[in-house]
Amino acid sequence: MEFFKAIKKVKLSNPVMLAGWPGVGNVGKIAVEYLIQQLKAERIAMLYSPYLPHEVLTSESGEITMLSNSFYYAKANTGSKSRDIILVTGDTQPMSPEGQYTINEEIVSRFIKLFKGSEVYTFAGYNDGQSINKRRIFVAATGKDMIKSLKKDNLAFESTAASIWGSAGLVVAFAKEYGIPGACIMAETNGTEFDAEAAKRILEFIEKRIGMHINMGDMQALVKETDKFARELAEQQKPEISFPDSIVKGNSKPTYIH
Amino acid sequence: MEFFKAIKKVKLSNPVMLAGWPGVGNVGKIAVEYLIQQLKAERIAMLYSPYLPHEVLTSESGEITMLSNSFYYAKANTGSKSRDIILVTGDTQPMSPEGQYTINEEIVSRFIKLFKGSEVYTFAGYNDGQSINKRRIFVAATGKDMIKSLKKDNLAFESTAASIWGSAGLVVAFAKEYGIPGACIMAETNGTEFDAEAAKRILEFIEKRIGMHINMGDMQALVKETDKFARELAEQQKPEISFPDSIVKGNSKPTYIH
Amino acid sequence: MEFFKAIKKVKLSNPVMLAGWPGVGNVGKIAVEYLIQQLKAERIAMLYSPYLPHEVLTSESGEITMLSNSFYYAKANTGSKSRDIILVTGDTQPMSPEGQYTINEEIVSRFIKLFKGSEVYTFAGYNDGQSINKRRIFVAATGKDMIKSLKKDNLAFESTAASIWGSAGLVVAFAKEYGIPGACIMAETNGTEFDAEAAKRILEFIEKRIGMHINMGDMQALVKETDKFARELAEQQKPEISFPDSIVKGNSKPTYIH
Amino acid sequence: MEFFKAIKKVKLSNPVMLAGWPGVGNVGKIAVEYLIQQLKAERIAMLYSPYLPHEVLTSESGEITMLSNSFYYAKANTGSKSRDIILVTGDTQPMSPEGQYTINEEIVSRFIKLFKGSEVYTFAGYNDGQSINKRRIFVAATGKDMIKSLKKDNLAFESTAASIWGSAGLVVAFAKEYGIPGACIMAETNGTEFDAEAAKRILEFIEKRIGMHINMGDMQALVKETDKFARELAEQQKPEISFPDSIVKGNSKPTYIH
Repeated sequence: MEFFKAIKKVKLSNPVMLAGWPGVGNVGKIAVEYLIQQLKAERIAMLYSPYLPHEVLTSESGEITMLSNSFYYAKANTGSKSRDIILVTGDTQPMSPEGQYTINEEIVSRFIKLFKGSEVYTFAGYNDGQSINKRRIFVAATGKDMIKSLKKDNLAFESTAASIWGSAGLVVAFAKEYGIPGACIMAETNGTEFDAEAAKRILEFIEKRIGMHINMGDMQALVKETDKFARELAEQQKPEISFPDSIVKGNSKPTYIH
Repeated sequence: MEFFKAIKKVKLSNPVMLAGWPGVGNVGKIAVEYLIQQLKAERIAMLYSPYLPHEVLTSESGEITMLSNSFYYAKANTGSKSRDIILVTGDTQPMSPEGQYTINEEIVSRFIKLFKGSEVYTFAGYNDGQSINKRRIFVAATGKDMIKSLKKDNLAFESTAASIWGSAGLVVAFAKEYGIPGACIMAETNGTEFDAEAAKRILEFIEKRIGMHINMGDMQALVKETDKFARELAEQQKPEISFPDSIVKGNSKPTYIH
Repeated sequence: MEFFKAIKKVKLSNPVMLAGWPGVGNVGKIAVEYLIQQLKAERIAMLYSPYLPHEVLTSESGEITMLSNSFYYAKANTGSKSRDIILVTGDTQPMSPEGQYTINEEIVSRFIKLFKGSEVYTFAGYNDGQSINKRRIFVAATGKDMIKSLKKDNLAFESTAASIWGSAGLVVAFAKEYGIPGACIMAETNGTEFDAEAAKRILEFIEKRIGMHINMGDMQALVKETDKFARELAEQQKPEISFPDSIVKGNSKPTYIH
Repeated sequence: MEFFKAIKKVKLSNPVMLAGWPGVGNVGKIAVEYLIQQLKAERIAMLYSPYLPHEVLTSESGEITMLSNSFYYAKANTGSKSRDIILVTGDTQPMSPEGQYTINEEIVSRFIKLFKGSEVYTFAGYNDGQSINKRRIFVAATGKDMIKSLKKDNLAFESTAASIWGSAGLVVAFAKEYGIPGACIMAETNGTEFDAEAAKRILEFIEKRIGMHINMGDMQALVKETDKFARELAEQQKPEISFPDSIVKGNSKPTYIH
């Protein structure tokens, strides 16, 4: 019943997936939406699903869009050569085990079979209830080879026995089952609704890992805007799926119509 | 597992769908049921679904009916020519994302493939918690072309970034995906159980849009009756799916039997 | 995923289905279990389902049985000739709309296609919160013909606009869709856990309707036993699916093991 | 949608299944994990499912694993000859009836069709709210033959009319439907999070039944460790799926990341 909609055909060379979804601190979502803007990524496909909430988003200009996951394409300059990137994000995450399993399996298998994808990184917030002064990065990966490879890059991170909820974990788990390397990059978050600082830490990590340059100039502005927006949201008790204007265009002030 | 039941075969010429379901203020349901009566529409098909609540309705004469969505056919006089209309409504809306997705996809694809439908309008109430003195109309559509086309008709409405819950939004979203134009027409509602005033506003809008004449004579009576019924319901704490006699015949005084 | 298990092959001639499930007052369940005993019916098939609760019943002798719906066969003496009867009941009812739709559709379609069934009666309790001094019978049927036919038999009953929850209503609704006559016979119940008096009223109704003789001798004993059992249950806060010894053999004192 | 992953091919001769899952007192899980260690069993297959919770486990070394059920293989010395054993356990149990039915049916049918399995024993805790001084063993089986056969072995146990929740009951129920003998062995538990004493009682029972030798030396240490762990868990309000280090390696200190 999933409904995959190809929007633009692109020729890809072993692309890497960078993916994040709404979650704790919305860290993964902010990181990916920022990359979409900075890399001027273009949407090449959408995935609709019966497991996403039964509502549609409307833009200020009056256009309706079903909740979905989207695949974006960008080319990243990595010095001498460039790297094809598939950015993946969604409006929300399904609430049921069946929904999570089905959608995340579809995302990974489309990435591999349709886009010839060869590597997966997901972004998420991490909060174990302790102080986050150090803003550490935690990594969980498809296997020891990936952990070793990340350490070779002199990347600072820790691993821990834990449990990762939702798409950030399941997409890497499906990558493992389908035989491609992948890792879930988690930044310590304070748990506020929009933790752009944690997203920034993840972008710095992936920047080094991929060897691409990400312009961080707009990030501080984003931190300020998300802080302001988070305060406004708290006052109005708005639903979680709303997002700052600069992040998801046009869906900034959701009102629920029943 | 959906169960589509054709009742009467009709020859249709590019029909337009006008659809509404129980929801906030029951605005969409009232508008469609009123059209079914005024246009003397006849039921041509029913759609049963495993996702609708597991109960059946009984009439005073003792006949059992499964909960369903129904397709009605009517011909609207639009001056020089007439327009084929498919009215769609349901006894209730499914509670699960899977149910909403499956039923609404089926409604739109049947409308297009079986009835050769070419255009979709859904009706709903809109309540953003603010004063509704102006009784504004909000529109969300399949695309900018539809918004432009409505404006050309000198129809007064607004658009806003929001989120529409349930069938009223999803049916238009599926119309968009299947490539036919459509819009969700929302009237500001006070949120009472039966807001016939909001339904009237929607009918005035669609009357102009389709170019057909709707006799509004019985509407004031309906407003009074629904008001009375709503008060009675409130006293008896009756379930939401009950409806005034003049709207859905025979199912007026539901009692729950377990 | 449903799992139909044929136990014994029987040659049937236009059998009538008499069916009841656990529900308000357990009226339908008591009536059918009593008929199974009195008519010495034998189990000819079972229907397992992924939608029934994930537990199994154990008997005192230590045998495990999955929760199920069962089909029993009996021959009823109706004076000059005899009538083939299929008795249907279940250990419990599924909690989800999908489960109810799927199981009840399967019960009716197996009855028609496999057993050549021609008529359906379901039994249930009815409680509208008012006095039940009159212990009235309510009937909801597949159509006006059935109502008319019941009235010709001088059977005393009423009909009312209402809503019937669960299998008792859905089985008759599916019978209607599949084109065989059927009715849901409801007796006013006081809502206690086991209302054998209401079950007795239903048996008297169906006795006249089918023209068969039901020995009511054990019923008063049952009323006493169920009363005693209900009091014991209330004291021990036992789960709803438990049943008196004389009704479902061997599953009398359920203990939940997790 | 289930995803069965064969890890190692083994040649089996009428293997017996010994299985247990997290549940009351985690009795079944502890017993099976202890056997996996003592018999140096090796994992030969995994079963993923859309019905298990949407989270992944990470090890301290940073590797991700999807929640699953696993099949392990071991050879047990039973004196003159040896017996092939398939040990089955899972990280958790699905919450929905559909999930339980689907996963347990798959486990039993794989065991029979793929591994030529001929006999099934599941382990579980039993708590009827009464004193557990006697630490009795309760057995529920596929049929009277199995009960008789167990009694011939001079095994001390009781049977009772009850209801068994989840995999421990359903796996035996499916074994019955698929025509192989099986039994659910339940030990009275005090209901603490990790009741190793009850697990020990079950292992003593199955040791006699299979005629194999199980080294119980590490069990007392396990009792102490689980007691300590349970106290720590209680303090930290950790989720149920966490397990002591010596039982499931590497997933000892779960932290939830959302």
